[in-house]
Amino acid sequence: MNKITKLLGIKYPIIQAGMVWCSGWRLASAASNNGVLGVLGAGSMYPDVLREHIQKCKKATRHPFAVNIPLFYPQIDELFEILFQEKVKIVITSGGNPSLYTQNMKNLGIKVLHVIANTKFAKKAEDAGVDAVIAEGFEAGGHNGRDEMTTMCLVPTIVQNINIPVVAAGGIATGQSMLAAMSLGADGVQIGSRFAISRESSAHELFKSYVVNSKDGDTVLTLKELAPVRMLKNDFYKQILALYQKGTNKEELTNLLGRGRIKKGIFEGDLQEGNLEIGQVSAIINSVESVKDIIQNIVADYQLTKSNLYSINDKV
Amino acid sequence: MNKITKLLGIKYPIIQAGMVWCSGWRLASAASNNGVLGVLGAGSMYPDVLREHIQKCKKATRHPFAVNIPLFYPQIDELFEILFQEKVKIVITSGGNPSLYTQNMKNLGIKVLHVIANTKFAKKAEDAGVDAVIAEGFEAGGHNGRDEMTTMCLVPTIVQNINIPVVAAGGIATGQSMLAAMSLGADGVQIGSRFAISRESSAHELFKSYVVNSKDGDTVLTLKELAPVRMLKNDFYKQILALYQKGTNKEELTNLLGRGRIKKGIFEGDLQEGNLEIGQVSAIINSVESVKDIIQNIVADYQLTKSNLYSINDKV
Repeated sequence: MNKITKLLGIKYPIIQAGMVWCSGWRLASAASNNGVLGVLGAGSMYPDVLREHIQKCKKATRHPFAVNIPLFYPQIDELFEILFQEKVKIVITSGGNPSLYTQNMKNLGIKVLHVIANTKFAKKAEDAGVDAVIAEGFEAGGHNGRDEMTTMCLVPTIVQNINIPVVAAGGIATGQSMLAAMSLGADGVQIGSRFAISRESSAHELFKSYVVNSKDGDTVLTLKELAPVRMLKNDFYKQILALYQKGTNKEELTNLLGRGRIKKGIFEGDLQEGNLEIGQVSAIINSVESVKDIIQNIVADYQLTKSNLYSINDKV
Repeated sequence: MNKITKLLGIKYPIIQAGMVWCSGWRLASAASNNGVLGVLGAGSMYPDVLREHIQKCKKATRHPFAVNIPLFYPQIDELFEILFQEKVKIVITSGGNPSLYTQNMKNLGIKVLHVIANTKFAKKAEDAGVDAVIAEGFEAGGHNGRDEMTTMCLVPTIVQNINIPVVAAGGIATGQSMLAAMSLGADGVQIGSRFAISRESSAHELFKSYVVNSKDGDTVLTLKELAPVRMLKNDFYKQILALYQKGTNKEELTNLLGRGRIKKGIFEGDLQEGNLEIGQVSAIINSVESVKDIIQNIVADYQLTKSNLYSINDKV
């Protein structure tokens, strides 16, 4: 038991990230049934679709699960209505201002975690009353903070500056990297990319294969003028690059991005025109596995690596 | 003992980074005398100045020390001549092509480590016959790789792809982050920023205070069109930013950079016009300490954090 397993009522201090077009009820319930916190990614769901996934998830697991809500979601009030009606017990918020929504949820007994990427927002989240923060580093896939702090530097900085539990995210996919995060002072980890290409993820098989075959240097953080996003390089990225090379502005970038690019890439498997969001750690993810195998492998590697850690012997 | 302590003949698997305008004989010999590998940073030294520092370092310590050589150094052959004449036993090379220089050094019995930032160059270094690589992540200060891989993602990727020992660099300043790097599979660590502001560093006191007072988000990786470099934000950075905002090119950036910017910032303490190179991890470095205290603190924190690491108990 530690602060995070106790707070969330889970076996291992691991959260499966709520990722757009990946994290439906199949992935979330499989994660929850295997000892970690399963999370539905509401960002890619219409309100009634979210309700359906919550109801299916409840039927598929008796263990705790959460919903991830990006606070810039257009029909945000409708989403919260559904969370309250369906009595969701854990909510992870990201983007936006947690002080607007946290107290309402806390009054209903909901546990709240908020994603941050620097000290300033970590303190705001703590002041807003969240139960824990998720500190997400520059290496993470999808939307990303502007300060570009990496997990290795961000986690100890946040641990030094706030008093509530800290979950590390970004670059974590194995027992080894989970152990690294715990060494840095994290109370738990959030794992995205490895679950994004699990069997139970709703991502397209072509996207999963593309990730499996990607190497270091294949992802890039771009579109910083809009909202920084990490994606795999492809034709769509070449078009972005061409705009930057000729000199561009927000309007042109927004027009090129258009609508539905992430769905096209991750859910429909259009590897060239889609936005293929994934973390840098995809470089070491080399197969599509079941959620059960992934979690067992992470736990076993964590314990083995911990036992074999180099010990400094001052008598040498 | 592990691969790195054995290879380098040192007590702790820690390398003090050879940093321009910081790593003279005072810093290097203090590091070597306290159980880690001291390193002279030749990048900011004329050949005869390097010779002087090597000779003073030999007098100040009976322990192994190394010289760091950027392979793009203009009078590179002259530098190597001095290394050979002075019988330097360990050389760390960075930038450039290790296949041009490594075999010569190996024939003379010199141990060679090469700094890399992706798998491609790690394999080239291994093929060139180096004894170990230093895998340096995006969070590191000073010059930086183009792929922007963070230490958390880079280290396991390199460990997975080559067979020689791997030293982790970038974001490491404490016993906790050293433990994180060892968890990721590194055989040792290179620590820069914390030694850059140690008492024995030749950096200016104003630079040291500026680093002590800096926070997360205060460094930035910029000048990517020339050679990417991480520095603290200041007036000089504002001038760079102004060029980017109006649209710029290599020539303008080169002109703005001019010559001697790093000396001006780090050695002369001109905080506004100088190039203040330092790593992201400066966010958690809060005091100027002696090399001895730094090393004792890192070793103690490493062992304490290791003993207290969260253990997964499957019976919970």
